[in-house]
Amino acid sequence: MVFFFLRCDYGLPVILILKNGVSDQQIDHVIDRVESLDLKAHLSRGTFRTIVGIIGDETEIPIDSLRAIVGVEQVIPVLPPYKLASLEAHPQRSVVQVGEVKIGGGSLAMIAGPCSVEEPERMEHLAKSARQAGANIFRGGAYKPRTSPYDFQGLGEEGLKILRAAGDKYAMPVVTEVTDPRNVELVTRYADMLQVGARNMQNFVLLTEVGKSGHPVLLKRGMSATVQDLLMSAEYILSQGNSQVVLCERGIKGFDTMTRNVFDIAAVPLLASLTHLPVIVDPSHATGRPHLIPACALAGLAAGADGVHIEIHDQPEVARSDGPQALLPQQYADLAEKMRQLAALLGKHISPLNAEALI
Amino acid sequence: MVFFFLRCDYGLPVILILKNGVSDQQIDHVIDRVESLDLKAHLSRGTFRTIVGIIGDETEIPIDSLRAIVGVEQVIPVLPPYKLASLEAHPQRSVVQVGEVKIGGGSLAMIAGPCSVEEPERMEHLAKSARQAGANIFRGGAYKPRTSPYDFQGLGEEGLKILRAAGDKYAMPVVTEVTDPRNVELVTRYADMLQVGARNMQNFVLLTEVGKSGHPVLLKRGMSATVQDLLMSAEYILSQGNSQVVLCERGIKGFDTMTRNVFDIAAVPLLASLTHLPVIVDPSHATGRPHLIPACALAGLAAGADGVHIEIHDQPEVARSDGPQALLPQQYADLAEKMRQLAALLGKHISPLNAEALI
Amino acid sequence: MVFFFLRCDYGLPVILILKNGVSDQQIDHVIDRVESLDLKAHLSRGTFRTIVGIIGDETEIPIDSLRAIVGVEQVIPVLPPYKLASLEAHPQRSVVQVGEVKIGGGSLAMIAGPCSVEEPERMEHLAKSARQAGANIFRGGAYKPRTSPYDFQGLGEEGLKILRAAGDKYAMPVVTEVTDPRNVELVTRYADMLQVGARNMQNFVLLTEVGKSGHPVLLKRGMSATVQDLLMSAEYILSQGNSQVVLCERGIKGFDTMTRNVFDIAAVPLLASLTHLPVIVDPSHATGRPHLIPACALAGLAAGADGVHIEIHDQPEVARSDGPQALLPQQYADLAEKMRQLAALLGKHISPLNAEALI
Amino acid sequence: MVFFFLRCDYGLPVILILKNGVSDQQIDHVIDRVESLDLKAHLSRGTFRTIVGIIGDETEIPIDSLRAIVGVEQVIPVLPPYKLASLEAHPQRSVVQVGEVKIGGGSLAMIAGPCSVEEPERMEHLAKSARQAGANIFRGGAYKPRTSPYDFQGLGEEGLKILRAAGDKYAMPVVTEVTDPRNVELVTRYADMLQVGARNMQNFVLLTEVGKSGHPVLLKRGMSATVQDLLMSAEYILSQGNSQVVLCERGIKGFDTMTRNVFDIAAVPLLASLTHLPVIVDPSHATGRPHLIPACALAGLAAGADGVHIEIHDQPEVARSDGPQALLPQQYADLAEKMRQLAALLGKHISPLNAEALI
Repeated sequence: MVFFFLRCDYGLPVILILKNGVSDQQIDHVIDRVESLDLKAHLSRGTFRTIVGIIGDETEIPIDSLRAIVGVEQVIPVLPPYKLASLEAHPQRSVVQVGEVKIGGGSLAMIAGPCSVEEPERMEHLAKSARQAGANIFRGGAYKPRTSPYDFQGLGEEGLKILRAAGDKYAMPVVTEVTDPRNVELVTRYADMLQVGARNMQNFVLLTEVGKSGHPVLLKRGMSATVQDLLMSAEYILSQGNSQVVLCERGIKGFDTMTRNVFDIAAVPLLASLTHLPVIVDPSHATGRPHLIPACALAGLAAGADGVHIEIHDQPEVARSDGPQALLPQQYADLAEKMRQLAALLGKHISPLNAEALI
Repeated sequence: MVFFFLRCDYGLPVILILKNGVSDQQIDHVIDRVESLDLKAHLSRGTFRTIVGIIGDETEIPIDSLRAIVGVEQVIPVLPPYKLASLEAHPQRSVVQVGEVKIGGGSLAMIAGPCSVEEPERMEHLAKSARQAGANIFRGGAYKPRTSPYDFQGLGEEGLKILRAAGDKYAMPVVTEVTDPRNVELVTRYADMLQVGARNMQNFVLLTEVGKSGHPVLLKRGMSATVQDLLMSAEYILSQGNSQVVLCERGIKGFDTMTRNVFDIAAVPLLASLTHLPVIVDPSHATGRPHLIPACALAGLAAGADGVHIEIHDQPEVARSDGPQALLPQQYADLAEKMRQLAALLGKHISPLNAEALI
Repeated sequence: MVFFFLRCDYGLPVILILKNGVSDQQIDHVIDRVESLDLKAHLSRGTFRTIVGIIGDETEIPIDSLRAIVGVEQVIPVLPPYKLASLEAHPQRSVVQVGEVKIGGGSLAMIAGPCSVEEPERMEHLAKSARQAGANIFRGGAYKPRTSPYDFQGLGEEGLKILRAAGDKYAMPVVTEVTDPRNVELVTRYADMLQVGARNMQNFVLLTEVGKSGHPVLLKRGMSATVQDLLMSAEYILSQGNSQVVLCERGIKGFDTMTRNVFDIAAVPLLASLTHLPVIVDPSHATGRPHLIPACALAGLAAGADGVHIEIHDQPEVARSDGPQALLPQQYADLAEKMRQLAALLGKHISPLNAEALI
Repeated sequence: MVFFFLRCDYGLPVILILKNGVSDQQIDHVIDRVESLDLKAHLSRGTFRTIVGIIGDETEIPIDSLRAIVGVEQVIPVLPPYKLASLEAHPQRSVVQVGEVKIGGGSLAMIAGPCSVEEPERMEHLAKSARQAGANIFRGGAYKPRTSPYDFQGLGEEGLKILRAAGDKYAMPVVTEVTDPRNVELVTRYADMLQVGARNMQNFVLLTEVGKSGHPVLLKRGMSATVQDLLMSAEYILSQGNSQVVLCERGIKGFDTMTRNVFDIAAVPLLASLTHLPVIVDPSHATGRPHLIPACALAGLAAGADGVHIEIHDQPEVARSDGPQALLPQQYADLAEKMRQLAALLGKHISPLNAEALI
């Protein structure tokens, strides 16, 4: 008999490959199970392997249940499990707006600031330096997820106030990390954009809360998250009705201790081929080494990123956290000048800030 | 002149290696900075490199600040950053008690149950099967951290009630995952042990709450967490005054897609050499492949684990989650018999349950 | 129209998933290309994706050429690319014989010896200690692949002679590493088994030569090799007509620096489910830490390994290489006793040596 | 007593940290062992740990032997183990010349060609396309290291002749891979530059032979090699008196299957900070996905690479190997134009070829 496939008018989201030597009875059982899940099964037997095509609404297909069917060796999803984040489903690229700054569509975010929010004078000084250098969003952490319970944990709400004041003084929107679902509402009151950090990328409780907030979100890739994992976490936020999501590649776990992480630059064009959401890079956390940051920031832009997130500090030695990876304001200004030139070559531009509160 | 070290009566928690070619002025600056942090600095100059030994209370030494000092190339901590979890500081091994089950000190935890809590009849049936096979703690998730927002997210408080009832019926203590700091108090009311899952291992907000609860905690290693990261997360819980922590190796991220994760078996004896806390293994999540679980469970015991966590289901095909990696009750019973024999060979035993509610 | 698959009497080694939105013309082109490769193509169109099943002799299907066809998004091989190594194709498990030692089929290899061959007296002493402890194959490297050109590179042919003499004196077969295709014939003259080291696992020139030699081969898994890569390397040897191959899990690259590598214990049962070839473990290289080796050796046996490879040295401090990971002869003897007990529990035994040259 | 370090006129290449609780006798033993290795030991005792500084010629210090001393917990090398490759030792950056092409010092290599050498007409056509687009070195493999023994293994010497002829026709120098130490002399006769592939990066026998040849070498980073491993492999070649070495970042092993490897872009500026040798990138192998190659090539230049290696093919569908990752000549020409513009912005230029054999 001849094996062949015929046309169909349905999608084909999943293919099952059955184990070698399944009996007719087992095959019947597989078909029964598939049909009991309200899916259609289409059988193809070969000498070595039998294959079952599954048809149904792909957002409803329970992959785990298919994988668990006795006799199934492999389950191959044909379509990706994210929908709202998918470029295929939404071919128009998104532009996310944070204050007056546009991220995406040729418009670049230049996010800069210290790791932690520190005292008001320093924050004002850093906001001024950042804006003068060309940054358009000011950052600083008031709630710090630290590996050690003995390390500085952030200034909390007091820090939010200081950050807001420094941003306001120089007419810059601000972004800050939120780590606790109980604080989302509070942080939203002070910040223009909520950051979900790498360690919380799969804190689904938090993702749901920032999704509900409707606020712009900077979603950082987890250290061992695949690109698809990142898109699934974005999907959590999007599925709450919040489409203001910017993705951030900030380094993945690697085996070489010479850098803090591995800066996965190929994730930038890869994400651009899979999703309509803007993508920025964070070479500060990706490398953890100041002398590697400028090269990696430029590489990020050249690879197509919609912005760059960099930690700066005027006195790294006294920074409350992550001092070793901060650029000095002057180093940042030099780099920003190169980024401006590169952006122009690429036909992009740094999203401008209003001239008010001129500096 | 000759380089040498003299005795001292202080600890030496940190060594700084300075950059090649640092000037005298830079070296003076390093010394000044170290002293401004209330630490003592001890200088050693070589032809190629100058080295500074730092003395102080190691829990107070700000490693980041040292790393940020201009002229410093490398900072080498001599002592580990965890204290309460350290075997060196607490040479007596801990035994954690969950209900009447003892974990550690030769007494093994046999945790079994479905991935998700399901309907009451099934949970009762599974609790009975688990207990009959030799399990001494029953598990089931009421709050499920799922990669996709479209997947089943757990039954919530209703699930907690079902789990508790099933455990009570067969006199088994129960463990369940908590994912939201707002739910810790609620989960504590129903469960004998709180699980912090791999994705939340560095959710420090959650760690702090489970620490405050004083309840026994099953802390799973994150997918890209080093053994030291795991111990630092345990330290978060311990530093809240809760010493009832059991660590769990459940697989780390790897490059081979044939298994779900890489089961890092060497972490078991490694942790035993570093901490007094009990360590168990979870071959279900480590491999994600039922046909590999029995071999890996036995390997875990042989490597010195204080228990084994395994997912079971009587109908994996209809499981609400993770069906594909569940063992059938009979498979679990067969494995449990082998574990009992291996435990005896190792001079250990499965912690017995009270004969009440005999089955 | 309805999509479905019909029976066929051919195998179905490969499925192509076409890109979203391929035109009819592109689909025709795909079919043409497939047929020009002397393969049969079977088309199935869905709303979202079109799929093409490929039929042909799977050893002849050029996966790369299929992947390169314009319009093809994904190529999914249904059958594994190794044939001779496959358990499916050769359901009878192989037993490899080295001298009188049998590896596989319940018979365990206990390979022990120093990293490098050293002076004759020490080698004799170590062979004696190893045999007395229960080892049945003696090892030592005469050609050492060292990361640094400044490190000791081995004694060469002189080392082979010393190794052979030490083995002969205590009636033990010997295994040693070969690193140069020009030396295979030479090494074969002295050794009972040829080791291909992790760094040479994909040195296909060398694999081909050891394949031609017909000599038993100990093939170590590369540090970043998947289990399938390892089987493909075995296939190189087997395809030269040499079926005397023993696989060795010796640790893969990981991110945690506390161990030298990650001991991928699950590879042991995984390999047992995929291949008929015997599998042993090397906890010395997998961990690089003597205090972790005994636990990991026992774990290896518990997971089903057909043997254990361990480095020993009577004076690790003066070893020419890898001293830090060597067990002392007495530590090895203590471990061997535990391995013997565990083997008995598992219904296996250490392959006995002839009583000649009794010790 | 007070702990301190005094000046010395020697280097301090290594620090030993002793185990907690070492006895005086053990410390004396450590000192004895260090001195028996003709090194000087300098002791510093603390409350928690005792430390020993080691002084000697760092190229002669046997790290392994130090690590093996009873009582030693950790060995910390202060200076890197590579000397000839080190920027610190040779602050003048090297320029490697291949034919008339200069690599390094602002002069970029543009290496292009098919994965495998194919028939003469195609090779001529591809050489012409490559040169017209702006490539300055032509590549093609005559000896292919393939994962499967059933895949095309290359045309051998016939391929070398075809490659040479195609290069000569368009006045381009050629680079090709050598995989067998027995073939180095042969390949040297035809090629201007020898490639050592990723799988052979630690094939020290081969490194030694290409070192002896004195020919320019393109050394690709292994899939699980650290940056230091790569430099140590370069050191093998350099230590044979051959300083014509160009390093190539071509992707490391990662956990995400959406790309073939992880393109470790930060390795480019990191290598530039450690070595005087030129560094190029290979986005073809790093990503394995044609649609990601242009972005990653530009990122490589922006990060400071001294050249880019890209696989091209006019008919990827019929390529003998790696067709799926090849760019079409027109895609390469478009990319080359962008690379030229970016090079100009960076103050660099593509190393020009002689106008002879104009095209």
